[in-house]
Amino acid sequence: MPQKLAPAISDWTQLIEQQRWQELSAVLEDTHVSDIAERITALTPKERAIVFRLVERERASEVFGYLPYGEQRELIHSLSDEEVKRVLDEMRPDDRTRFFGEMPAEVTRKLIEELSPEELKESRELLGYPADSVGRYMTPHYVFISPEMTASQAIEHIRKVGSRSETLNVIYILDTNGKLLEDIRLGSLVLADPQSKVTDIADPALVSLHAMDDRERALKLFEKYDRVALPVTDADGNMLGIVTVDDMLDVAQSEATEDIQKLGGSEALDAPYTQVGLWDMIRKRGGWLSALFLGEMLTATAMSFFETEIAKAVVLALFVPLIISSGGNSGSQAASLIIRALALHELKLRDWFKVCYRELISGLALGFMLGVIGFFRIVLWQHLHLTNYGQHYLLLAFTVWASLIGVVMFGTLAGSMLPFIMRRFGFDPAASSAPFVATLVDVTGLCIYFSVALLILHGTLL
Amino acid sequence: MPQKLAPAISDWTQLIEQQRWQELSAVLEDTHVSDIAERITALTPKERAIVFRLVERERASEVFGYLPYGEQRELIHSLSDEEVKRVLDEMRPDDRTRFFGEMPAEVTRKLIEELSPEELKESRELLGYPADSVGRYMTPHYVFISPEMTASQAIEHIRKVGSRSETLNVIYILDTNGKLLEDIRLGSLVLADPQSKVTDIADPALVSLHAMDDRERALKLFEKYDRVALPVTDADGNMLGIVTVDDMLDVAQSEATEDIQKLGGSEALDAPYTQVGLWDMIRKRGGWLSALFLGEMLTATAMSFFETEIAKAVVLALFVPLIISSGGNSGSQAASLIIRALALHELKLRDWFKVCYRELISGLALGFMLGVIGFFRIVLWQHLHLTNYGQHYLLLAFTVWASLIGVVMFGTLAGSMLPFIMRRFGFDPAASSAPFVATLVDVTGLCIYFSVALLILHGTLL
Repeated sequence: MPQKLAPAISDWTQLIEQQRWQELSAVLEDTHVSDIAERITALTPKERAIVFRLVERERASEVFGYLPYGEQRELIHSLSDEEVKRVLDEMRPDDRTRFFGEMPAEVTRKLIEELSPEELKESRELLGYPADSVGRYMTPHYVFISPEMTASQAIEHIRKVGSRSETLNVIYILDTNGKLLEDIRLGSLVLADPQSKVTDIADPALVSLHAMDDRERALKLFEKYDRVALPVTDADGNMLGIVTVDDMLDVAQSEATEDIQKLGGSEALDAPYTQVGLWDMIRKRGGWLSALFLGEMLTATAMSFFETEIAKAVVLALFVPLIISSGGNSGSQAASLIIRALALHELKLRDWFKVCYRELISGLALGFMLGVIGFFRIVLWQHLHLTNYGQHYLLLAFTVWASLIGVVMFGTLAGSMLPFIMRRFGFDPAASSAPFVATLVDVTGLCIYFSVALLILHGTLL
Repeated sequence: MPQKLAPAISDWTQLIEQQRWQELSAVLEDTHVSDIAERITALTPKERAIVFRLVERERASEVFGYLPYGEQRELIHSLSDEEVKRVLDEMRPDDRTRFFGEMPAEVTRKLIEELSPEELKESRELLGYPADSVGRYMTPHYVFISPEMTASQAIEHIRKVGSRSETLNVIYILDTNGKLLEDIRLGSLVLADPQSKVTDIADPALVSLHAMDDRERALKLFEKYDRVALPVTDADGNMLGIVTVDDMLDVAQSEATEDIQKLGGSEALDAPYTQVGLWDMIRKRGGWLSALFLGEMLTATAMSFFETEIAKAVVLALFVPLIISSGGNSGSQAASLIIRALALHELKLRDWFKVCYRELISGLALGFMLGVIGFFRIVLWQHLHLTNYGQHYLLLAFTVWASLIGVVMFGTLAGSMLPFIMRRFGFDPAASSAPFVATLVDVTGLCIYFSVALLILHGTLL
């Protein structure tokens, strides 16, 4: 347990300097909110912001309430200070979420209202919402009304306060504490009887986002409910801002782009192809390519295990590329289907067994089919005297057939399960790229092929 | 030249039965519009619709004008007739666009208003707009006002006619002929001085779509202008309907899904993974997989060309999977980057040379890098006595290095240029899937590897 220190300001400063967040947080817990409010203004902007962010949410709201308006504004600007941002950046992500949780709603609201759109873009991480969370996309340009108003009063109010008409499409009904009650389309307000109460003409079902939600959830709700904007609240249902559909269109596109780039076996470029510098591009692609190459080197190792067999029956080597690429191709297919289905939430983690079963059957059918083609290719070439595979060509053909069943089944299985495994362990499923799956399948495919060959050709070719 | 026939109704019927569209179209050209209007009502619904669709746009508008209201409605319903749809379906696509062009604006408008949303979904192809064109996505639920109105008159009008408030966000200003003049946000109307003219408060820049536009252009405009709906006009600027952003969100997602599925080397599934039947899925994947397998069989042929070399130096076979997969991986990378950049219009067809240059340099750098790793892998394994590559191991290492440069360069080049070639010849660039590129590169990679081997190892191992 941390020691109970007297809450002297010099101590706070010292703890910040030494980044002893846990102790500082404990000290603040023992300090009365009015004391915190009093002392916080004596600190430097950076210290002030950090101390405030370390105070537990409920109490921070009280601290903020104790501050006079001018001090509140100063604190808001301290929160978007460059140095505070740096402290946050330098912190380990788990520490960051542990110490810097959600801010009180009124502070968040003031923060996103006070800052210019450019500042806001830069400082959204300060709100304490993780990357790719809804909190990072919300804007403060919404109009709210109170539940007692009539339609005509509401329109009168909108005319007074509304300024950016493109975000006027939906109006939000908040109670006096800023809690989101309902939303109402401007169109409904205009069409309604002027004397009707706004609560009577509001949308029957309120759909709202939580600032901590992942942007993918937002995307899903926009797709499902065909809205142009959705309200964002904090954990207690207090309105913080709105997210508009055009931002979600960008999100949808950039998520798909990332997935496609990862699927192709490179890092996400994070910028249009033409705007990425040549060397930056080579670096982003080279990393994955080298990793895959290192993995693929196992094929050389696997091959050297079977060097004696190859020397005895060179004809076996001829089918190595065909066999392993079939495994790779079926694996890429399966992986890309599953990755996309996971991204679109068509599949959940718990569906892995169903998918596994489906893919095993698909793999069996596909492998059998390719095997048939491969079998007849060998027999045909032999009979047409295009290639001479020797007297045991039929056994060779059976070896290829059987290997293809095994390799394609393993390919589809690996390709379909790898994205699930990635997701399970918190990685992006798209990182189980086609080349990654192909590399994995190549090594296994060689082992399957030569094992089958040893089994079938033992005593004849081998 | 078609013969000039007397425009007898029996002749029209006969020409339709024999699908002699060109002649029927010529006959109609020689018939007065009032005669067409008179005779058209005597035909069966199917014939009526087809004759009307074959009349040239300008004149069809006049024919429509000649018809009394009841007959107009009947014609509209004939146009959505099952049999008419079948005739259209059976027609070759080029004939379809040649004969069944854009309908007159008033007919299109009436058609999409008269039909239920379900019927409309089914019959959109009847409008004469190609698949994936904006015309297929437009809906008739918009409100228009005339340019002489004041803001308060406009709001009064909206209150009278507006019914579906979710499409009330933007109001369109049309002239008496139905030509789209300007658009105005409902928010701007509400905020404006009630006495101001709507033309004074309209959006400064009108952004509109043409019904023939590709849906990708629509998506691009929505992204650029952050609108919730965009108006759709015919070639003459007549308002036909609107397209809403939520449809575009679906478009963005399904385009990306298609691309990812194709990139993974299968046909687009056209439905969520879980909703595609097992055998249907196997069929969709089996087609491409078999095609790739047939292509990949060339590797067996290529390998058999070098059978003597492999027999002489079995050690060469050990690196075959490593070499060809490196080509495949670098090709997949390049292909997926370029396919996405083309889909997002970051790259145009004319950029191919710039890309070619960039990718050649990238390929050189990446190939050189992988070659270095491969070289040291061989030297290291030899010195650590992990594998014995024989006395000429250094020459072998150089062979691998040089081959990797060649193979990776060819891989990036093929992967980046194939999508351009696809697009150039009117195919979907995404069809140049990762497995497709890998197969192409595998065969070439083998030839590069063994040619380099012959060059470097001649007189020693070979």
